[in-house]
Amino acid sequence: MASRISRRGLLLGGAAAGVGAAGGALGHRWATADPPPVAEEAVLNGERTVPFHGPHQAGVETPPQSHASFAAFDLGREVDADGVRRLMRLLSDDAARLTRGEPALADTEPELATVPARLTVTFGFGRGLVERVDPGAVPEWLRPLPEFDHDDLDPDRGEADLLIQVCADDPVTVSHAVRMLGKDARAFTVPRWTQTGFRRAHGSESDGTTMRNLMGQVDGTVNPRPGTADFDDLVWRDTDQGWLTGGTGLVLRRIVTHLDTWDELDRPAREAVIGRRVADGAPLTGGGEHDEVDLTATDASGLTVVPAFAHVRRARTDDPGERIFRRGYNYDLRDHGTPEAGLLFAAFQADPVRQFVPIQRRLDELDLLNEWVTTVGSAVFAVPPGCEEGDYVGRTLLEP
Amino acid sequence: MASRISRRGLLLGGAAAGVGAAGGALGHRWATADPPPVAEEAVLNGERTVPFHGPHQAGVETPPQSHASFAAFDLGREVDADGVRRLMRLLSDDAARLTRGEPALADTEPELATVPARLTVTFGFGRGLVERVDPGAVPEWLRPLPEFDHDDLDPDRGEADLLIQVCADDPVTVSHAVRMLGKDARAFTVPRWTQTGFRRAHGSESDGTTMRNLMGQVDGTVNPRPGTADFDDLVWRDTDQGWLTGGTGLVLRRIVTHLDTWDELDRPAREAVIGRRVADGAPLTGGGEHDEVDLTATDASGLTVVPAFAHVRRARTDDPGERIFRRGYNYDLRDHGTPEAGLLFAAFQADPVRQFVPIQRRLDELDLLNEWVTTVGSAVFAVPPGCEEGDYVGRTLLEP
Repeated sequence: MASRISRRGLLLGGAAAGVGAAGGALGHRWATADPPPVAEEAVLNGERTVPFHGPHQAGVETPPQSHASFAAFDLGREVDADGVRRLMRLLSDDAARLTRGEPALADTEPELATVPARLTVTFGFGRGLVERVDPGAVPEWLRPLPEFDHDDLDPDRGEADLLIQVCADDPVTVSHAVRMLGKDARAFTVPRWTQTGFRRAHGSESDGTTMRNLMGQVDGTVNPRPGTADFDDLVWRDTDQGWLTGGTGLVLRRIVTHLDTWDELDRPAREAVIGRRVADGAPLTGGGEHDEVDLTATDASGLTVVPAFAHVRRARTDDPGERIFRRGYNYDLRDHGTPEAGLLFAAFQADPVRQFVPIQRRLDELDLLNEWVTTVGSAVFAVPPGCEEGDYVGRTLLEP
Repeated sequence: MASRISRRGLLLGGAAAGVGAAGGALGHRWATADPPPVAEEAVLNGERTVPFHGPHQAGVETPPQSHASFAAFDLGREVDADGVRRLMRLLSDDAARLTRGEPALADTEPELATVPARLTVTFGFGRGLVERVDPGAVPEWLRPLPEFDHDDLDPDRGEADLLIQVCADDPVTVSHAVRMLGKDARAFTVPRWTQTGFRRAHGSESDGTTMRNLMGQVDGTVNPRPGTADFDDLVWRDTDQGWLTGGTGLVLRRIVTHLDTWDELDRPAREAVIGRRVADGAPLTGGGEHDEVDLTATDASGLTVVPAFAHVRRARTDDPGERIFRRGYNYDLRDHGTPEAGLLFAAFQADPVRQFVPIQRRLDELDLLNEWVTTVGSAVFAVPPGCEEGDYVGRTLLEP
């Protein structure tokens, strides 16, 4: 239990902000340091850091930062396992520097690196990368999701060999880190796509407030809590998973929201579609945001309060294993062509086929929300475990 | 002098955050309220407000927020002066609500309106709008800038009838306000373009730190200070300017920075191009960021320390009237097609032809920085004075 607590301290930005790693786990040894007695508000948020090194990669359990960029790359045709190894060493090294608020090794704008603002860099491997390195090491679930009836997938937002998820509370920090890491990747890869999202800014709301999406809904209420055994079971599965022990899986889906037709719905209709009150995200059957929805409750006319087509009813499951950890971001692009707004649905789980697919199948079959949202991008990545100082992410696959 | 101080208090978000307007100016009378004794850090930044009402529009003197969106519209063919009046009443009313942290009148997502985060909404009129209302009221300078040799202008980022500048410290707040105000404008206008930018987040750096652009340079050191007589002279010119008394002019230029070739320059070369040190923005002739550059200083070989082609030398003038107030934002678009990064150069001044054009002419003639930057969008707007509660922006033109 001590190890679980210290691992949590290691990985949660809030607790570990600005200090070295603490505790030990997974048979590795991590540097230990007592956190200095710094008053929470005496430090600028821009100075806060989240340790890059640890048993798990940062950017999963880390309380979501305000800004995220998901940048995907394909390996160059000629890049072999050795090339991937060099690439991941380079990327890990620069990610570690940048997350400390230090310039990348060949940083062309080192002054832009001085505001870490809880920067995290999280690497994900697509099926193509793992196959290139060791076809026998591809997890069964690391493949495109089954296509769902309501999907309208654009291959330009699809599967890729390498994902770099960059999150921070400062948009300049994200921009700079994405550019520097993209330059590291340049000799080894071709860029596939980048998707950029945002949440409320640091200091806008009390910590722990569930985000709202651009449809105005509280989004992400039912979510396992980082640092709990439940979370570890669902996301990390620290038991023997070969090179992915201590890692996880990421499903990233780009969900366009059709706000113009959503506007035509009045408030009761919106609430019926979701099954929750707009005002506070509480179930239509009463209570507060985090209370359980009563799917059997009926109204005066004998109909269930939460309709058969409601999103919460379709998303819910009695199988505790069919749950995921959501860490999504809004997006709203107006600078080029037709405006597009929606959600970068990012969900971490140990096994997307076992955990995400059944949920999405139920939503696909019958969820009235499908009238106003369309998934246009979908990709699955294996997120390797973290690494200790001096090591690199992906070593468990590349030098097992 | 008392009136200048109180006007400054009225317009600077930091001082006036969350409280009503104070002081009087320009012959109008403004509501008065004693600021409540709130400790600066006891209030979430998301709760802070900047008054919409006042002698000048907010969003000019307001310390720059982290996020900005510049949304441009053309009037529908059939919209006459009466239509513009109705449009500006609607927009002013909703802008006032949103900046108070209240929903727009017909807000479809009222819960997204509850975090003002120093939201400002600033309206600008293009030549087309003023001509539609009263051709005799068009200021001489309200027309496209002369085309400069290094410009490569895209008409899709060009002149438009109406600009809505939306700034806040929270990207969700900006997104929501842009959407609501865009819906107000829908019946009267067609959207032309939207340009979105960012600076460092609230809490990332100490207040008053000069921004850096994505080339890594300190950008905006020489800038008149809001609240000074110098600023008022350059920006507001509160003397008789007809309907624009208490207003100003805005030049908005989209400047692409060619970061890949900029990367090829080493640090001394970059410093020679600009004439300032990268590290701290200080002139190459010594001192600190805000010290005057010595254009006559020579090095051991007898050459001027600041080269003839340096940006600071070309930008500088001995005519104190040829100065502008810069309030620009970085942009970095990677989500669609070829990535594009640069600067949304936004500069306020009473007379762009008298103030901005001579500076830009000198830069256009000889500024080595032109090798790495290209202006691809350019538009000029007249920014009407502010209005008092219950009134609307543009009344001085529309109901003189």
